[in-house]
Amino acid sequence: MRLSRYFLPLLKETPSEAQIVSHRFMLRAGMIRQEAAGIYAWLPLGFKVLGKIEQIVREEMNRAGAIEILMPTLQPSDLWKETGRYDAYGPEMLRITDRHERELVYGPTNEDMITEIFRAYVRSYKALPLNLYHTQWKFRDEIRPRFGVMRGREFLMKDAYSFDLDKEAARRSYNRMYVAYLRAFTRMGIVTIPMRAETGPIGGDLSHEFIVLADTGESEVFCHKDLLDMPVPGEDVDFDGDLEPIVRQRTALYAATSDVHDAARFEAEVPADKRVTARGIEVGQIFYFGTKYSVPMKAVVTGPDGKDVAVHGGSYGVGVSRLVGAIIEACHDEAGIVWPAPVAPFDIGLINLKKGDAKTDAAGEDLYARLTKAGRDVLYDDTDERPGAKFASMDLIGLPTQLVVGPRGLEKGMVEVKNRATGAKEEMTLEAAVNRFTS
Amino acid sequence: MRLSRYFLPLLKETPSEAQIVSHRFMLRAGMIRQEAAGIYAWLPLGFKVLGKIEQIVREEMNRAGAIEILMPTLQPSDLWKETGRYDAYGPEMLRITDRHERELVYGPTNEDMITEIFRAYVRSYKALPLNLYHTQWKFRDEIRPRFGVMRGREFLMKDAYSFDLDKEAARRSYNRMYVAYLRAFTRMGIVTIPMRAETGPIGGDLSHEFIVLADTGESEVFCHKDLLDMPVPGEDVDFDGDLEPIVRQRTALYAATSDVHDAARFEAEVPADKRVTARGIEVGQIFYFGTKYSVPMKAVVTGPDGKDVAVHGGSYGVGVSRLVGAIIEACHDEAGIVWPAPVAPFDIGLINLKKGDAKTDAAGEDLYARLTKAGRDVLYDDTDERPGAKFASMDLIGLPTQLVVGPRGLEKGMVEVKNRATGAKEEMTLEAAVNRFTS
Repeated sequence: MRLSRYFLPLLKETPSEAQIVSHRFMLRAGMIRQEAAGIYAWLPLGFKVLGKIEQIVREEMNRAGAIEILMPTLQPSDLWKETGRYDAYGPEMLRITDRHERELVYGPTNEDMITEIFRAYVRSYKALPLNLYHTQWKFRDEIRPRFGVMRGREFLMKDAYSFDLDKEAARRSYNRMYVAYLRAFTRMGIVTIPMRAETGPIGGDLSHEFIVLADTGESEVFCHKDLLDMPVPGEDVDFDGDLEPIVRQRTALYAATSDVHDAARFEAEVPADKRVTARGIEVGQIFYFGTKYSVPMKAVVTGPDGKDVAVHGGSYGVGVSRLVGAIIEACHDEAGIVWPAPVAPFDIGLINLKKGDAKTDAAGEDLYARLTKAGRDVLYDDTDERPGAKFASMDLIGLPTQLVVGPRGLEKGMVEVKNRATGAKEEMTLEAAVNRFTS
Repeated sequence: MRLSRYFLPLLKETPSEAQIVSHRFMLRAGMIRQEAAGIYAWLPLGFKVLGKIEQIVREEMNRAGAIEILMPTLQPSDLWKETGRYDAYGPEMLRITDRHERELVYGPTNEDMITEIFRAYVRSYKALPLNLYHTQWKFRDEIRPRFGVMRGREFLMKDAYSFDLDKEAARRSYNRMYVAYLRAFTRMGIVTIPMRAETGPIGGDLSHEFIVLADTGESEVFCHKDLLDMPVPGEDVDFDGDLEPIVRQRTALYAATSDVHDAARFEAEVPADKRVTARGIEVGQIFYFGTKYSVPMKAVVTGPDGKDVAVHGGSYGVGVSRLVGAIIEACHDEAGIVWPAPVAPFDIGLINLKKGDAKTDAAGEDLYARLTKAGRDVLYDDTDERPGAKFASMDLIGLPTQLVVGPRGLEKGMVEVKNRATGAKEEMTLEAAVNRFTS
C-alpha cells in the first residue's frame, strides 16, 4: 500500500481524553475514532490489526474442532426471560423496542440464543460433542466507558459454546478451549497466563481467565514463575486426544488475579524465588456451567440408554477488539507501538527519504514492487514529508521492519534495515534487502 | 469436514412460512435460523457462503482502490440530525435510548458517519480521491419482514463512500465502483445488469441498481439483449485509467426496472428481437450525490487554488446477506440449490455409500485425505444414513461436485463423479478422480 493513497490520519498531539497508553497510541496512530461514548470506528490501520487477531482466533477454534456460525447482534428479549437473565443482567444490557413494540436486546453474550438453536435441532447424543462459535459485535452499556477499546460499549467478541452429554465430556470440551486459547494468544506474540476465576453472570463452577502480562495492566496478578516460560502446545497437538495432562501441568501451579488471590496459599505453595507479582489484562475467559441453561430451556438429548439428558454446557470468550489494546499495552515503547509480527498491520514500512529524487524513487519503487510481488505486505511511504517526520510516524505505527531508502545510502549502493523492536540498524545492498525479506 | 462432526441441520419438511424458493432452501439446507422477525442466525453452511460473498466483494473493492475500515453498528442520533435525515428516515430506522438517556440509532446506512470521519481528518485536496468502505451489519425496521434474508431487518451490507474534489472526479470514482460491481457479481457466477435507478433517501441525481436476473425475481426488468452477454472487464482492468468507455458501452443500451421503465423509449431504442423482459433482484446500488452531505456537515478541503471546496460524494452498496438468497433464486432446481463454484460452501461432496464396509471406508478416507491435502474443501458424508437420503441431502445443499464411493463401484475399482449443475455422471478410477480434482 502506498501511503500517498492510504488513509492514515496520524495525530501530532496526544488526545487529552486518553488515560492509558494503548488508547493514546491507537488515537495517535489513526487506528480508531470515537463515534459515541465507548463506540468506535476502526480506521484502516486498526481494522487490519483487528482482522489479524480475529483470523488467528478463528484458525485455532477450527483446529480445536469448533464450527463457525454467526448469530445476529439483536436478540428477542423472550430468550433472556426464559433463562431468568433478563432481570439479572441489569442496566448493562441495552434494551430496544421496535416499531411493533416488540422488545429486543443488543446481545452482550449468547448462551441463551445458542441454547435455543441447539434445542431446535439436536435430538441425540450422537451429535455430541458439539462446539459452535461466532465472532460478532456485542454491546454492554457500561456506566462509564473508558480506556478506548479496552472497555468499550460496542465490542467484538469471539464466543464459543460447547454441548456435551455429561460433566466428564464437558470437561474435555473445556480442555480443548483451554489449549486453543493458549495457542491463539501465543501466536499473537503475547504471554498469557490462565488463572482460576469467578464466574459472574455467566454462572457455573469452573472458570479460567486468560491474562496478558503488561506493566500497565488493569489488575494485579500473582503466579508461579514457571508459568511464564512453560512451552505452549504446537500445531500438532491432538485435540481428539487427552489434553488433561497439558491443562493439569498449568493448573497445578498457583495463579490468581487479585479478586481471588489468597496470600497465605501463595506463600505456602510457591517458593519465594518463584513468586511473581505482576499486572495483567484479561483477554479471554472460559466457563463450564453444566446444565444452567439446558435445564430452564429444555435442551435435552436422548442418551445411549434412550433416556433424556439435559446437556452440559460451557462458553468461551475472547475479547477480539480488546486484544488490540491489550497487545499495545504489552508491546510498546516511548516512540510508539511495537507490533508482534503476526498481528502487525503491515510486515514492512518502506521509507523513501527523498521523494522526487529520481534514483531514490526508482529504488523505492523497485523494492516496493519486488517485496509486494513476493507476498510481503508493505506500507510504502512515498509522500514528500521530511525524513524526521517519516521516521517518527513509522516508529509510532510500529511495523516490525523499517526499510529506508535515501540518496546518501544509494550513492554507496546501500539501504538501511531497522528492527523496530530492538532498534538495531543494518546497512545492506538493495539486493540483500530483497533477499532477506523474500526468501 | 466430516459430516459426522459437522452441524448441518437439514429439514425434511418445507417450512410453511417460507414463501419464496431461496427462503425454503435456506431453511431446509440448514443455512439459517430465524431468531426474531427478519433477524437470522447463520448456521455453518450459510455462514460459509456469506463469507465467500463478502470476500469476493472485498477483493474487488481493494482492486478498485477502496480502503477497508469498520464503522460501528450503533450511531449517535446527532449525526442524523446534522444532515436532516433523522426525521426523514421514518420508522424504518431503529432508535435506541441508552442508560444515560442518550439517543442512538442502529445504522441503516453510513453516509452521515463517514462524512463525520472525513471532515475530522482530511483538510487538503491532495488526499483525494478517497474511497472508504466497510462490511457491517445494518438494521432496517421493515414493517413486514419476509422472504428470509432477501428482506430481513438485520442484514449485512458492504457500503463504500467516495470523496472527490469535483463532479468530474466523482464521476471517475463512480465508474470505478460500477466496474468493480460488474466484476464482483460476475465472479459470483451470476449475471447482473446495471440499471438506471431512482435515488430515494440517499439522494443525488445519478444512480444505478445492479439486478440479478432470476425467474423468481421480485421485480420486472426491461433491457437490451446485448447487455446479457457483454464481456465483463478482467483482472487486468486499469482502475487508474479511463473507465468511461466501459461504462458508456453499457449505459448506451436500454435497461430499466419497472419503477422507471418507459415503454415508448424501450420500443424506440431497442429492436424487437433484442427486447428482453425478465424478472430480477436488486443486489447492489451505487449513487452519486454531490455535496448533499458535505455541505450540511461542512466536509470541506482546501483546493489547489487555496479555496475551500465542499467535497463531492458517492455511496455504493452491496447486499451481502441478500446475495445469498438472490444467488439461490438464480441458481437452483427442484432438488435444491445449485451453487456457482466460487460461492459454494464446499467444493466437493464426498459420499460414502456404505459406512462400516471396510473397503468403502478405506476408499472414502483415502479420497478425503488426498483431496483435503490438495487444498480442496470437501464435505465428507461419513454417516450411516441410507444412500437415498445421502443423495437427496447432497443435491439439496448443492455443492458443485459429488463424488460417490460404494462397494459395487469399488469392486470394479471405480467411483462416481456427478456434476450437480448438469446432473452428468461419470465413472472413473479413484486415481483418476483424485487427479481430476487436485491438478
